[in-house]
Amino acid sequence: MTNALHLVAPVDTLAMEFTREFAATREALFRAHSEPDLVKQWLGPHGIEMSIEHWDFRTGGGYRYLHSNDDGAYRFNGVLHTVRDNELVIQTFEFEGAPDMVNLEFLWFEDLAGGRSRLRGRSICPNTDARDALLASGMEGGMTEGYDRLDALLG
Amino acid sequence: MTNALHLVAPVDTLAMEFTREFAATREALFRAHSEPDLVKQWLGPHGIEMSIEHWDFRTGGGYRYLHSNDDGAYRFNGVLHTVRDNELVIQTFEFEGAPDMVNLEFLWFEDLAGGRSRLRGRSICPNTDARDALLASGMEGGMTEGYDRLDALLG
Repeated sequence: MTNALHLVAPVDTLAMEFTREFAATREALFRAHSEPDLVKQWLGPHGIEMSIEHWDFRTGGGYRYLHSNDDGAYRFNGVLHTVRDNELVIQTFEFEGAPDMVNLEFLWFEDLAGGRSRLRGRSICPNTDARDALLASGMEGGMTEGYDRLDALLG
Repeated sequence: MTNALHLVAPVDTLAMEFTREFAATREALFRAHSEPDLVKQWLGPHGIEMSIEHWDFRTGGGYRYLHSNDDGAYRFNGVLHTVRDNELVIQTFEFEGAPDMVNLEFLWFEDLAGGRSRLRGRSICPNTDARDALLASGMEGGMTEGYDRLDALLG
């Protein structure tokens, strides 16, 4: 599959990296990350309802949202260190079920030929326990499902 | 020396940790980190003039400051993910001379017996190059000198 998620998380570091290509311009890809009405249509695993409680997508801003399904509700929040339109987002990320286990996330939006784009991500975990818990949480499956929905939204 | 800085930065991880004890309560130690008029009296190496351009010390807030001496001027900025008074600060940290090399910093303020306190820090670097550059920048000496000035301020 040309649009597969590539996730790499070497055991000897606190960093996780991924890339994912999309059949859309990087401007469209960035918009799907910055506009809350778009974000709530794709972010998270299948079967999740997303409700956004706070969304201030700019350098110095922040966010908080709720994911819910039949099993329960999960809140996430963070602050935005850098927002450079169509290029780069640097933000914190906290799952409130694991308080203070804050990650730092880098998202690069890259132009490809033929109207395609690549999302490149790097997430730095605060410690190895937090990292292993995140990997064991089904994160990769949730990302894969979310990006598949994003394909459909961008198509 | 009872108040020595203990800095640990194992080569195989992105994390740097330190502890430093102070002959002051954790409330006084926290105040010296949160109030800009106090912060500018101690933060940074000897011979540095600190001028604070932005200071909003609360969860969701941020900061920007300038360090200058005869050699030049150095700007730093970040956003505050968590501020829990007298307990915990989680914030980003960027030296603007190395743009986008953003660290995530945890600062724990701990009570000790006899009116003393301990500052415990953990800084997560975005990659090993950024980490090595930070260590080579004289960071440890700057921290040691800053905390010595903080001793004097708290005394």
